[in-house]
Amino acid sequence: MSMANFENRYDIVIVGAGPAGLLLSLCLSRWGYKVRHIDNRPLPTATGRADGIQPRSIEIFRNLGIKRQLFVYQPARVYNVAFWYPSTDGKGIRRVGTWPTCPQFIDTRYPFTAIIHQGKVETVFLDEIKKSGTTVYRPWTIVRFHNTGEDSAYPLEVELKNLNTNVVETVRTKYLFSAEGARSSIREQLGIKIQQKSPITFVWSTKCTIRSNGGSIMIIPREENMVRLYVQIASSTDPDWNPRRSVTIPDVQRVAREILHPFKIEWDRVEWYSVYPIEQGIAEKYTLDHRVFLGGDACHIHSPKAGQGMNMAFHDALNFAWKVHLVESGFAKRPILASYEAERKEVAENLLGFDSRYATLFSNSHQPNEGATSTTVVADEENDFVKTFKSACEFTSGYGVLYKPNIFNWSPDHPAKSPLFSIPSVKLTPGRTLTPSTVTRISDANVVHLEQEIPVNGSFRIIIFAGMPSRTRKALEDFSANIKKNGSFLSKHLRDDLASMSYFERHNPHSKFFTICVIYASDKNSIDIKTIPRVLRDYHHHIYADDVPDIRVAQVKYAAHHKLGFNPENGGIVVARPDGHVGCCVQLVEGSATVDALNAYFGAFSTKPLQQNSPRCQL
Amino acid sequence: MSMANFENRYDIVIVGAGPAGLLLSLCLSRWGYKVRHIDNRPLPTATGRADGIQPRSIEIFRNLGIKRQLFVYQPARVYNVAFWYPSTDGKGIRRVGTWPTCPQFIDTRYPFTAIIHQGKVETVFLDEIKKSGTTVYRPWTIVRFHNTGEDSAYPLEVELKNLNTNVVETVRTKYLFSAEGARSSIREQLGIKIQQKSPITFVWSTKCTIRSNGGSIMIIPREENMVRLYVQIASSTDPDWNPRRSVTIPDVQRVAREILHPFKIEWDRVEWYSVYPIEQGIAEKYTLDHRVFLGGDACHIHSPKAGQGMNMAFHDALNFAWKVHLVESGFAKRPILASYEAERKEVAENLLGFDSRYATLFSNSHQPNEGATSTTVVADEENDFVKTFKSACEFTSGYGVLYKPNIFNWSPDHPAKSPLFSIPSVKLTPGRTLTPSTVTRISDANVVHLEQEIPVNGSFRIIIFAGMPSRTRKALEDFSANIKKNGSFLSKHLRDDLASMSYFERHNPHSKFFTICVIYASDKNSIDIKTIPRVLRDYHHHIYADDVPDIRVAQVKYAAHHKLGFNPENGGIVVARPDGHVGCCVQLVEGSATVDALNAYFGAFSTKPLQQNSPRCQL
Repeated sequence: MSMANFENRYDIVIVGAGPAGLLLSLCLSRWGYKVRHIDNRPLPTATGRADGIQPRSIEIFRNLGIKRQLFVYQPARVYNVAFWYPSTDGKGIRRVGTWPTCPQFIDTRYPFTAIIHQGKVETVFLDEIKKSGTTVYRPWTIVRFHNTGEDSAYPLEVELKNLNTNVVETVRTKYLFSAEGARSSIREQLGIKIQQKSPITFVWSTKCTIRSNGGSIMIIPREENMVRLYVQIASSTDPDWNPRRSVTIPDVQRVAREILHPFKIEWDRVEWYSVYPIEQGIAEKYTLDHRVFLGGDACHIHSPKAGQGMNMAFHDALNFAWKVHLVESGFAKRPILASYEAERKEVAENLLGFDSRYATLFSNSHQPNEGATSTTVVADEENDFVKTFKSACEFTSGYGVLYKPNIFNWSPDHPAKSPLFSIPSVKLTPGRTLTPSTVTRISDANVVHLEQEIPVNGSFRIIIFAGMPSRTRKALEDFSANIKKNGSFLSKHLRDDLASMSYFERHNPHSKFFTICVIYASDKNSIDIKTIPRVLRDYHHHIYADDVPDIRVAQVKYAAHHKLGFNPENGGIVVARPDGHVGCCVQLVEGSATVDALNAYFGAFSTKPLQQNSPRCQL
Repeated sequence: MSMANFENRYDIVIVGAGPAGLLLSLCLSRWGYKVRHIDNRPLPTATGRADGIQPRSIEIFRNLGIKRQLFVYQPARVYNVAFWYPSTDGKGIRRVGTWPTCPQFIDTRYPFTAIIHQGKVETVFLDEIKKSGTTVYRPWTIVRFHNTGEDSAYPLEVELKNLNTNVVETVRTKYLFSAEGARSSIREQLGIKIQQKSPITFVWSTKCTIRSNGGSIMIIPREENMVRLYVQIASSTDPDWNPRRSVTIPDVQRVAREILHPFKIEWDRVEWYSVYPIEQGIAEKYTLDHRVFLGGDACHIHSPKAGQGMNMAFHDALNFAWKVHLVESGFAKRPILASYEAERKEVAENLLGFDSRYATLFSNSHQPNEGATSTTVVADEENDFVKTFKSACEFTSGYGVLYKPNIFNWSPDHPAKSPLFSIPSVKLTPGRTLTPSTVTRISDANVVHLEQEIPVNGSFRIIIFAGMPSRTRKALEDFSANIKKNGSFLSKHLRDDLASMSYFERHNPHSKFFTICVIYASDKNSIDIKTIPRVLRDYHHHIYADDVPDIRVAQVKYAAHHKLGFNPENGGIVVARPDGHVGCCVQLVEGSATVDALNAYFGAFSTKPLQQNSPRCQL
């Protein structure tokens, strides 16, 4: 075996250019990593496959700066789900109710599922990946890989094959990521088993679900006036029965007609058609050696009807991207990579476990009354059905993801025991995403969406709700003085090129690992920039006024402080992880305690020890 | 002169592919007209030139379905203007206040000016024009034209020349539109004079205006961290002085430094630079024969600093497009074309007239107090300054356009004298644009922006605020019965292909000239589609529920009805012109009176007489 030369060394080899592979490739390419990305298909998905982008995934798209490119394709927007059941006379079907995709209790800017076929999603990613200098090689496949241990920097050796020429290329890499989909050859080579789960029986995130005496069907509106039908085909006990071979388009159409009776359906043309068994399962491990990882369908298989596969894949990739970045950039210790499997596998399990509870509950005997609305139903907080329905909506929308307390997610009772990690009024939960809020950016008076102000740049987000300037001035000065000390989380991880920083560096003027925002409980005209400590003023595009009214709290003066639960007298700090999930909340107090608490938080995984009370650093 | 063959016949020849020409070309191409479009530049604008898109123009872009394509370029957004004056000690400058581009009293979804260079705007239009089958020929120029009278259908003969090959082509056309810019050869050939106006002296719609003892300067933020400076260069009495030749980049930079003293400014690079005299003027006529028309800078020249040129051009073109469409499609009588000059020339004059009033008022003695805000100033309704300031904001934002009562704009005291044209509670003004409002579309539960629901399709918009279904059921039934009668505005202008209409025809199921919307004062779940008259149900994607809260009227139940001034008990109808300006408001009453009133309105310019009480038509 020849020693690979420098050109053949990569930070990561990504196999598969579906949702998981593409999102990971985009992040790591943008953050300067050398990515070898292959896919065994000659071209992106032409039609069909996954197509529902959940509200939270839309947020992620926007945070990646690619939402507008996607919406140019004018996806259909599913705001509501209609449920149909057999009519009481048994002769047809009747609509028993409609439910919002994202009811009012979920605070999101995108209370709908965007329906757009996977090929367009892939195209948007591919265009952006190209801009970052990474090429997706097609049609290429992975032949084999092993962790040779020969080269501690690039421990993996991977053989890749061009499927057109059959030429095999051997490369060395730090990481290998399988985004190959359900039939992952990497998973198979690792010998990781899929734990089968009972198939999904109920369905969310769709436009219209119909159960009739003839079977059940799901109808999803699509872009360009198309409609997708998921039609239940009766199974057979014949061991040789293979619906993928025997079920034809006319078969499916016939069943659809029966289910929809007495309504009629006709086809102008069939755009796409596929027969699949409903299977669900989760890989027992997402990695064995923290060098080769699985993501997306390679480690969890969902019923396509659940509309979860593509969205789960995005979350997997985003979760993995920033963690591998923190390790490879030298910020965090290698063991944090274990949190990828811990966090993402639990979400996959919760999702499947939840489905069966939901399905049982939503049986005919529990079906909603005719005319029931989400408003009337949700009003009854104590009802089991309501609780389950609410959870369903959270899963459907992508806001159900709650990562448990761990090294990144510090609840108020974290062992660090600092009382500053507890702010009783706060309405944020570590491990969940931030609530959206709208504020005015001081530098240019733009009205902006705070939760979107920091892009997916691999940095932690230090969001300082600064309260009223007159009340918190000393606390902010102390905060600034303390983060400038040599041992602080910020000072220990300064940029190498600090001296030559451009004024136009909006997000990372001091450190590539932190972006700081300051939001005052004040009218924008009352904020005097000159009184803001200089180290915070370096984040000139991240100083905001909380002066934009919010319809959800229409009577309140400082809507963002109020919605997130910060008292305008005291303020407080949210640390969000690079994926936007809350890491911890910390009180903003005078003295060094606030920065001490942040040092404790980041010190838990920083490669460099963070100490307080050191002399001032170069900031 | 050879007779032009069929290939050489066009509905319109458009000369110039700047803002006016492009918008007109897009509309007419989409509506099926045969457009010959030329421009004498080999390529679109590479950099510089106009760059401020006003709030109302952003609405128009969205209504044309091209806003998202433009915003992909991430224009800078100017929400605020800062004013600087000489400091009291005479040694420098101080900021005396900031003012919103679009203060709270203007209800718009886009309270900012979008800054993007003209080349990108042109590119967006060109892409869409191409999709509609029209090509812009470059570099081509117009040699001469005349109204031969030989061919009544195509009365104009135009000679066009390819500037690469010098080949001259003679074409025949129904209309010729000069969008050539200030140096319009067509205007010159027509002998139309420009009436000079005093140059603009005050400036709006900008980020930052600075007047110092060294002169004045205006600073506009741009995309990609660029900034544009408008620097005042002192004039000379020397008759041979030609600043376009003698003023260099270092000259301008030196003056800028002096004005900004004691602040400092440095240039990394100069992207674009131009010297121009401040000139203003309006063409005496916009047309002589209603066949050859002028639009945009060809008929009104503004100081570039006013940020009005490009926006005025869009409005001109939109105003002209639907009128020529109504005439050429056979809907309206030819004399309505006179309203193009009448409406647009008055706006141009108002704008220039207003400028001098504003400049006088905003002299140093009237300058706002330090710390004054739009809120404190606007609160004083009686103050002349406030009134003028408010008008300024309306002009700045593009919402100042108010077309006077005429054949299309019927105020309550229109000679038709029907009491139904008066709805005392209504807050809309004929000739102005609609107030934005958000509603739920029943067909798919999408939350939508009502004022954007009907695209720029050349149709009148019949917007029925239907009030509470239980109260207005009879009135709606009567309305539907009456528009189905043979003599109604709708029945007289049915589509030829009515029998083969697709279900997917969202906007024009009956007539290419009308799109109907129905908005109920009701929760979406309480609307029973089956009770809606069938003729209205044909507009299945235009049935809405007024059930979305609005922060401007947070306590109100039916926000859209309330904001536009319709009592939810009675409802009422707005007729909007194809450009979105209100034509008239009509009471929704039982019996035939409502349709009678609409017949009177449309009958004023319809080529076909509209009568009531005829037998039922084919609808």
